[in-house]
This record gives sequence, structure tokens and C-alpha cells, in this order.
Amino acid sequence: MEDFALLDRSAPLGAAAQEIIRRCRALAECTEEPGHITRTFLSPPMREVHRLVRQWMEEAGMRVWVDAAGNIRGVSGDGPRLMIGSHLDTVPHAGAFDGILGVVMGIALVELCSSRTDDRFLSSVSRPTDDNPRSSVPLGIEVVGFSEEEGVRFGVPFIGSRALVGDPVMDERVLDAIRAFGLDPARLPAAAIGGEVKAYLEFHIEQGPVLVKKKRPLGVVQSIVGQSRYELTFHGKANHAGTTPMNRRSDALAAAAVWIRDVEFMGNKDLVATVGRLEIEPNAVNIIPGLVRASLDVRSANEFARIDSLRTILGDADIVADRRGVTVTSEKRLDQPAVQMDPKMVRALCAAVKDAGHKVHRMVSGAGHDAMILARKVPSAILFLRSPGGISHHPDETVLPEDVEAALSVGLHFLNTWSPS
Amino acid sequence: MEDFALLDRSAPLGAAAQEIIRRCRALAECTEEPGHITRTFLSPPMREVHRLVRQWMEEAGMRVWVDAAGNIRGVSGDGPRLMIGSHLDTVPHAGAFDGILGVVMGIALVELCSSRTDDRFLSSVSRPTDDNPRSSVPLGIEVVGFSEEEGVRFGVPFIGSRALVGDPVMDERVLDAIRAFGLDPARLPAAAIGGEVKAYLEFHIEQGPVLVKKKRPLGVVQSIVGQSRYELTFHGKANHAGTTPMNRRSDALAAAAVWIRDVEFMGNKDLVATVGRLEIEPNAVNIIPGLVRASLDVRSANEFARIDSLRTILGDADIVADRRGVTVTSEKRLDQPAVQMDPKMVRALCAAVKDAGHKVHRMVSGAGHDAMILARKVPSAILFLRSPGGISHHPDETVLPEDVEAALSVGLHFLNTWSPS
Repeated sequence: MEDFALLDRSAPLGAAAQEIIRRCRALAECTEEPGHITRTFLSPPMREVHRLVRQWMEEAGMRVWVDAAGNIRGVSGDGPRLMIGSHLDTVPHAGAFDGILGVVMGIALVELCSSRTDDRFLSSVSRPTDDNPRSSVPLGIEVVGFSEEEGVRFGVPFIGSRALVGDPVMDERVLDAIRAFGLDPARLPAAAIGGEVKAYLEFHIEQGPVLVKKKRPLGVVQSIVGQSRYELTFHGKANHAGTTPMNRRSDALAAAAVWIRDVEFMGNKDLVATVGRLEIEPNAVNIIPGLVRASLDVRSANEFARIDSLRTILGDADIVADRRGVTVTSEKRLDQPAVQMDPKMVRALCAAVKDAGHKVHRMVSGAGHDAMILARKVPSAILFLRSPGGISHHPDETVLPEDVEAALSVGLHFLNTWSPS
Repeated sequence: MEDFALLDRSAPLGAAAQEIIRRCRALAECTEEPGHITRTFLSPPMREVHRLVRQWMEEAGMRVWVDAAGNIRGVSGDGPRLMIGSHLDTVPHAGAFDGILGVVMGIALVELCSSRTDDRFLSSVSRPTDDNPRSSVPLGIEVVGFSEEEGVRFGVPFIGSRALVGDPVMDERVLDAIRAFGLDPARLPAAAIGGEVKAYLEFHIEQGPVLVKKKRPLGVVQSIVGQSRYELTFHGKANHAGTTPMNRRSDALAAAAVWIRDVEFMGNKDLVATVGRLEIEPNAVNIIPGLVRASLDVRSANEFARIDSLRTILGDADIVADRRGVTVTSEKRLDQPAVQMDPKMVRALCAAVKDAGHKVHRMVSGAGHDAMILARKVPSAILFLRSPGGISHHPDETVLPEDVEAALSVGLHFLNTWSPS
């Protein structure tokens, strides 16, 4: 067994950042596919993840349990709590930081706050003029590692966080997986948070290129985009590519191609629109495509823009198809409204960023996060860490040690001023 | 074993047409996949095809052998010959007529010419004013069923006909398949035709909608289109569909889509251009496509048009990609020049169509046929039979009995006037 260092609040934060990265890399070894990082909801490697996370939580003095949704939870302190968390699962062939970083950082913050009573650390990272004495009010912190966020195993995302807001996923396959892991679905209601949790804070990699482009280590999320997903099917007529004259064709791919170009055209700085997946039938060199299934993904923090663009995009598919003797049908797969982060939490997080000596960059999250679910019950906020190269969901996904250090510093400043009132 | 009728020249041609269709349907039972018609080069069901074809050839009084390329060949009469043929193999999940119809019709014509000496049939199908006595010159006819034309089993088409023109396919996999079937590749040179074969005539379904649209049962092919095939690869950058702003994307599919639309735009009445196949990576709803492989198929009877359009299409791919931060590479897969049918044969066939009481429709073949290969050595021609619904390479592929009857009548008129000189 590997030996992990205890974090020491008296040491420079750089060492803590290195230890956090080392822990994330260690958890990346827990995988369903050797040579890749693939860890889905309650899959076998999740047991080793629980074992390591429990060990670190207990070393930080926390009381630890796994709830009926497979979320690992650790509490430090008594009374009203700030919850800090993110998810333990990954996409197939993932990187080592998406999700898990937020859990490991939560534990690190508890360690850093509780292991020492002196304030040497805070004074060393604060601006010289700053004076941030540790609040004497005993602060409760709950760290949670959500069992599921990516939606990979059953096509249903947020299985972990939905249990905490009293909206557990009741899909039979999910319940069977819970039983198979040795947990009891009857206890799902008990996983829901009560009045003791006062707010939720999530640390997460950006998964995009914005902070890199802006040369900022951190970003404060003020809203999470709304998202629409559709599947469109273009029905043409498969035919011989050599013997069917151009004016006798119903080419489903030619129609879809015009539409794909139009979808891209609808994107702008406040809205992203993507066709990421096509299935073509019969998909042969010498046969005119008879059928194309295309995915559509539209996201915006502006609800009006999202719904209006979607209407245009779907209407355009009809027009394009109609002109070419092709028909098109569409099916809604997801309609997720935009979620605003809590303004007071956002302000407090911005203040902490400033106090830690960094420039504040407010931004929109283009991807869903557990904070989106927690926001239904408690004031929630997210701090993004820069993703080098903008890369995520990929083995090359990483974080810079100095960015983790900066985020830790922001976390400590946030905890220093945050009160559950 | 099914009992097949002998054709009788004294009977109306309608009965012969019905028997031809019945024989094609019987051969369709020889398949690698029960419930489908799939019969590739020298696959096990080809043995039963050989057995039935041999039986019919022998009943028509022909001397029969299988050459080293697996072609079944039957000769009637002595001296200089007209060769009539087409292929025995099929695409996967094929129809019952593509290829095999031409072989069965060849045998039927031998039967109709040789089984009776009186001319009752010809006078009954000719126009009243017409007088077409059967030539007294002994006519040699060789009927050939080519073992392979579709290119399915090894990705190499025309294995059968290439052996006849002294250009056998020497691919080791092909030679192994020949050995496995019990034939001797060393004897491939002996499969080549010599001076005894004076011309080649092929009956084939149109595999397109032109004759249906023109309401003509038959078409005389005057040329076979030239064909170019390329594979283009658009190299973009896979990225998160939610977190990557539109102006930071290198979307390989968006680039390919613009190009696909431009490819379609290059098509006109003398040139067909098709993108039939796409492979997209990673092909996921929420990931911007990082790579797209696209097939390109361009065909025209006009060589200048084909080569000029191709240059435009490939140049356009570069321009489209360049504008979007995507790169594109292309690889030539096929460059098959257009083939002209023999003008004298075409004239004779047109005359036979007219003599049989039908209007002459000259046309271009958008697909390759064995006649394209035979044309390298001997004057060659093709008579197309209308494809109902324009459907081919599909279980619904069919022919109308009256069109087969018309083609038989044209065949008899052609034989009546054709001389090997």
C-alpha cells in the first residue's frame, strides 16, 4: 500500500498541492480497464476509491460513512455545515482530475483547517497587508464524493447528488447496482441532506480553454448553461451511387450536411451548438445514404437564446430536408434549464479569490456539475481550476500544481470568512 | 431437386421469360446467409450454382467446364464465337437478378436457337413486315458465368472477367481461395480467351431509375462511366461540446459538412458525385468531432468532366478545412477511366432492339460491368433491362417478365444478324 502524506497547515501550500495531485493520480489507478481510467457508478474499482478516500478522511479526523447511493461522506466539526464535494466516477478513458480533484481538495481543506491551531499558513499566503484570523466559531465541514455524475453506466447522470437533494434516481438498473454493491436502496431517503447543510462548494477543473486563454488560474462560476439535446433522423432513400442521377436522389447525408453547417452557424459567444455524433445507413462508399441520425447539443446560460436558437435549428432541418425530398424527425433527449449559482456565495468566493491575491474571473460553466443539483436545496458555488490545453475527458487532462495551490488558498480564505448564517 | 423446364423456341417467349425468372430465383437460394442472398467469390454456395448452371447448359447441348478462376463456361457450336455472360456472385443481402440474369439469359438464348429448326418463334415476335430468317452459318456461342464481379470477398472486383482477358488477379488470398475450391491457379493463363471469341454481349439489369423514368423496357449501353474514389480525412480537434467556445473549435464534422454540400453541388446530368460513408471520431453527443473520414465517389462518361470536377472537389476540401483550423488529407482509392462500348456492336444491338419492336434508348452505365473488362480484348456491348423502382443491391430488386421477354426477343434478333466477321 502506498503511503500518503498528512497535510500540514504549517507547511507551504505548494506541498499540499503536490500531495493533492499525487492522491488524484493514485485514485486514477482504480479503473475498470487496465491502461485507461474508466470508473463508472459502483463498479468494482469504486471499492478501492472508497477505501482510500475513507482513509484520508479519517486521518483528517472526519466521521465517515457511505450512503445508500454509494456517496462517500465525511464530517468534521459539529453543527451547521458547509458541504464541499464533487464526483468519484469518470467517463471512459478519462483523465485523473475531473471530479475527483474536488473531493481530494475538500479533504485537504479539512486537514489544513483542523490539524494546526496556529495561523502561520494563512499569514504566509495572504497579502502582506491582509489579516485573516481563523474564525473562532467551530466550523462544520462535510466532504462528499458523489458516486455518479457522468451518466456513463446507465445513461442517467447525477445519481449521487440527486440522492442528496431528495430526488434519488429510481431506475431499476440503478437500484440493482446499489444492491449488488451491498447497499440498501430502501435507505436512499436517509441520504438526503437536511437543514444541517447550509451551502455547497465545488472545486472542479474548467474542462475548457477559457482560463488558459485569459491566463487565469481560477474562475468563479456564476451560472451553469441550460442544455438541450435532440436526436434528428433524416430519412432519404439509399440508392446506387453510380446509377442514380443527381436529380433522382434523396440523399440523407447531403441534407444533414447542410443542416450541420447551419447548426454551427447558430453558435455565438453566448451559445454553443454541436453535432457530435452521426449514424449513417448503409454507410457504404458506393451507396447514397438512405438514413442519417444526428445528435444535437445546444447550450447557453441565456434561456431565451437557447430556446429561440433551438426553434430555428429544428425549423431549419425541416426546410433543408423538404427542399431535397428528404423527411426529418426529431426527438427531445434532454431539456435542462440554466442554473444560477447563489449570488451571495459567488460574491464570497470572488472575495476569497481577491483575498488570496488573484484577479477575479467570473464565468459560465458550459458543462453540468453536481453543484447544479445541490443548488436546488442550498446556496451553491463552483471554483474552476484552469485546464491546461483546455483538455478534459482525456488521458492528457491535468492541473498545474500552482493552480491547485491557488485554489487551496482561495478555499482557506473562503472558509475563514464563511459563516452558516 | 427442383425440376426446371426446357425452353422451347416454338413456344411464346413469355414462357421462356417466366422460366428465366424462375431459374434466377432458384439460384438465389444458393446463399451464405439463410434468409438473405449473399454469395461471394468461390464461397460454398457457389458449388450448387455451378451444378445448376452446368445442368441447364448441358440440357441446352453445350460443352461445359469450370476454368481456373472459377468461371463456368459452356460452348455451343463450333468456330468463331459470340460470348454471352455476366457474373454469378452477389453483394451482401442482394437481389436475385444482378449478374445472374445475364448468365441465365445466355443459356436461354442457346436453348431457343438450338432446340428447334423452324422459325415459328421469330415470325411470331417480329414485326409483321419483318423477315429475319435464321442465318444458315453455324453460330458459335459461349456462355460464361463469371465467378466474381462485385469485389466483396477480397475488395478486388472483376476476378472472373480479368482471367478471361489474360490479366488474372494474382492476390495471394484470391489464389488461396481458388485452391481451397479445388481449382489450380497454375491453370489461370489457360482461362484467357483466344481468337475464337469475336465479341461479348451482356444482359444486365440497369440498377438505376432511368429506364423506369423513360418508360422503356430496355437500354443500349454506349459507354461505362469512369470512376474516381478517394478517402478524405479531416483532422480537427476533439473537445468538450459544452465548454469549448465556438471560436476555439476545430470541428472536423462541421468542415466535412460544408465540403459534402459542395460535393453534391458538383453533380450534374453528366456527372454523379457522392459521399456515401463517414467515420467520425469520437462520435459522441457531447464531444466536438476531432476526426472525420469521408468517402468520395465521382463518376462520369466524360473523362474531362470527371478529372476537372475531382480537382475542384479536392481543392475545395483544402479551402473549407483551412478556413476552420482543420487540416485535410486525401488518398486515391480508384481511378478507373471511362470505357466506350464497341460502336459496331452498339449499332447492331440498337438495330435488334428496333427489329424486336421497341424504341431505342442509348444510355451511359453508371456502374462497372464485366463488359468493361472484356472490352479490352473484344468488341463488347451491354443491353440493360429496366429495374422496377430503380432498385438494385437489395432484396426488392426485380425484373418484369415482359422486359425479360423483350430482351430475349432482342437477343434472338441480334443473333440472327450478327456474324463473327
